[in-house]
Amino acid sequence: MADPSLTPIPLLTDQLDIVIPTIRNLDFLEMWRPFFQHYHLIIVQDGDPSKVIKVPEGFDYELYNRNDINRILGPKASCISFKDSACRCFGYMVSKKKYIYTIDDDCFVAKDPTGKDINALQQHIKNLLCPSTPFFFNTLYDPYREGADFVRGYPFSLREGAPTAVSHGLWLNIPDYDAPTQLVKPRERNTRYVDAVLTIPKGTLFPMCGMNLAFDRELIGPAMYFGLMGDGQPIGRYDDMWAGWCIKVICDHLGYGVKTGLPYIWHSKASNPFVNLKKEYKGIYWQEELIPFFQSATLPKECTTVQKCYIELSKQVKAKLGKVDEYFIKLADAMVTWVEAWDELNPSGAEAANGSGK
Amino acid sequence: MADPSLTPIPLLTDQLDIVIPTIRNLDFLEMWRPFFQHYHLIIVQDGDPSKVIKVPEGFDYELYNRNDINRILGPKASCISFKDSACRCFGYMVSKKKYIYTIDDDCFVAKDPTGKDINALQQHIKNLLCPSTPFFFNTLYDPYREGADFVRGYPFSLREGAPTAVSHGLWLNIPDYDAPTQLVKPRERNTRYVDAVLTIPKGTLFPMCGMNLAFDRELIGPAMYFGLMGDGQPIGRYDDMWAGWCIKVICDHLGYGVKTGLPYIWHSKASNPFVNLKKEYKGIYWQEELIPFFQSATLPKECTTVQKCYIELSKQVKAKLGKVDEYFIKLADAMVTWVEAWDELNPSGAEAANGSGK
Repeated sequence: MADPSLTPIPLLTDQLDIVIPTIRNLDFLEMWRPFFQHYHLIIVQDGDPSKVIKVPEGFDYELYNRNDINRILGPKASCISFKDSACRCFGYMVSKKKYIYTIDDDCFVAKDPTGKDINALQQHIKNLLCPSTPFFFNTLYDPYREGADFVRGYPFSLREGAPTAVSHGLWLNIPDYDAPTQLVKPRERNTRYVDAVLTIPKGTLFPMCGMNLAFDRELIGPAMYFGLMGDGQPIGRYDDMWAGWCIKVICDHLGYGVKTGLPYIWHSKASNPFVNLKKEYKGIYWQEELIPFFQSATLPKECTTVQKCYIELSKQVKAKLGKVDEYFIKLADAMVTWVEAWDELNPSGAEAANGSGK
Repeated sequence: MADPSLTPIPLLTDQLDIVIPTIRNLDFLEMWRPFFQHYHLIIVQDGDPSKVIKVPEGFDYELYNRNDINRILGPKASCISFKDSACRCFGYMVSKKKYIYTIDDDCFVAKDPTGKDINALQQHIKNLLCPSTPFFFNTLYDPYREGADFVRGYPFSLREGAPTAVSHGLWLNIPDYDAPTQLVKPRERNTRYVDAVLTIPKGTLFPMCGMNLAFDRELIGPAMYFGLMGDGQPIGRYDDMWAGWCIKVICDHLGYGVKTGLPYIWHSKASNPFVNLKKEYKGIYWQEELIPFFQSATLPKECTTVQKCYIELSKQVKAKLGKVDEYFIKLADAMVTWVEAWDELNPSGAEAANGSGK
């Protein structure tokens, strides 16, 4: 088989949107041009809507600022965060494609150990199109990869795998550390290229970072909500984490896989750890209650669609985490608003989800 | 910090035994001399006890053949397999050290991507001495490794980690495939060096291979039983798998970690797939019932030592798997015999295990 990374034909160009949250001109796209130019971009402009964001020539894009979000969603716009990259999930909602890739505007093309530019998007697509193995661990990592397979002792009945809903990519250079770790290790850089993709086992939670992330909108989109962060909210920088815990519980329930590992992007600069600490500090202690909550969360059999799962999860959030802080009551309500807004903008999916089941 | 792989001082020389099951002269040790020469070897000779096994000069070793096993264990020798590498677990039992490394005699020194010889034993020791992270997944793999840490969103209360009981190493060249996969992919070689060590999450089973394996005898030794295989038994090549499922359930219960990944060894030759198929075929279908059994196995709180856990597990094996085949009734009895023999040979550990708890 030919090395697919040499294939000149970009995959799924009419089935995937690239979602980019930003407050600045998108010069970073120049570096991604060879890999992104055949795809449609959805740019979610955060902050001052009167500011003009420049997009390099030749890219096919639509751009939404806060005024657009308010106009399109009306009162339901309250569920979309402002002054926080959590606003990116609006892009997931307005997309009409099957797949989403989202990337931060401080992420550049990384190089593999041979010095070759990594086509991150292509690797994500491979990850999404190929099954996951959430029910049993394969010690040689992705068994579907060329040159690999299931090892001795892997049950044959599980070798078909499960549909992949999420592909979580990693970062060379600046690792995705919290503020305390940034403060303690200001000079740490990730230089280790780990040549592996693996499925996060069923029942295991992980810290999902939104910097370099792809998913199947049809399988998991309505749960990919990045919560209430930033302006007017008591926390920030937990948007992707929140989404990660929710989607993992729901993927586990519905039998979908979540992968992590390749591809790497080059994360160019660390955000300010002092600012981050202010955003994170409530999250850091709330999290100690959130993790046990999500670890023990179970969904009833009747939850056969993502929407039903997500509404059920919002009820559990309100009932159990509402005691931790009233913020979670507001967040639980926003989860419901999010699903309602999703269904309004995606009526065919909503019909399937709320009708006679999948 | 200096690269520990350059450290000339071998670690834990008086606290670790290397266990090697064999039927042939141990010429393979020549290649391992720089890494193994300071350690004590326990050689378990399988097959004809009258055959003389040659060990290269300069190694410190003790050797046990079948006559020795029968003499030392008396009637309890029935729990030690014959004509199968499962016999290696006798070496775990007679060792008096805290740590065990076991390796097959067709495994050679592998090279890392820079061309340097990999000191597999040293990496296993690092894995064992460093905590595990079984309760939450770290996307940058081992957070304790130099240049890595816990990523944003990893709960701070879990960053102390858990004691590591097992370090499962991998294989370059000939991958550890079952007979059907060997038959289908006779030419497949593992050439991918994945530079990672990761903890297998709590609640997740994995196929543990005994070819390149290290563990902490004090934490998990009495559960590291390789079962009844080979001569007079209906299956083979499931010895390490069986041990892996048992130790994982018990490590999860006792809060210990199991790691997989580095180090690699060079696996020189594939065993005969036709012979393997004969050994494996019952295992291949029994396994479909074994995995759900181990996935749902729970141990009561009263099981506070490995011995108590293992005896409890043997009861569940007899009660539930005894219905699958009478072989499992015999195996359950052998599990009990094994623990009894272990405690006889290791009276101080037995006292602690059967006394007032850990």
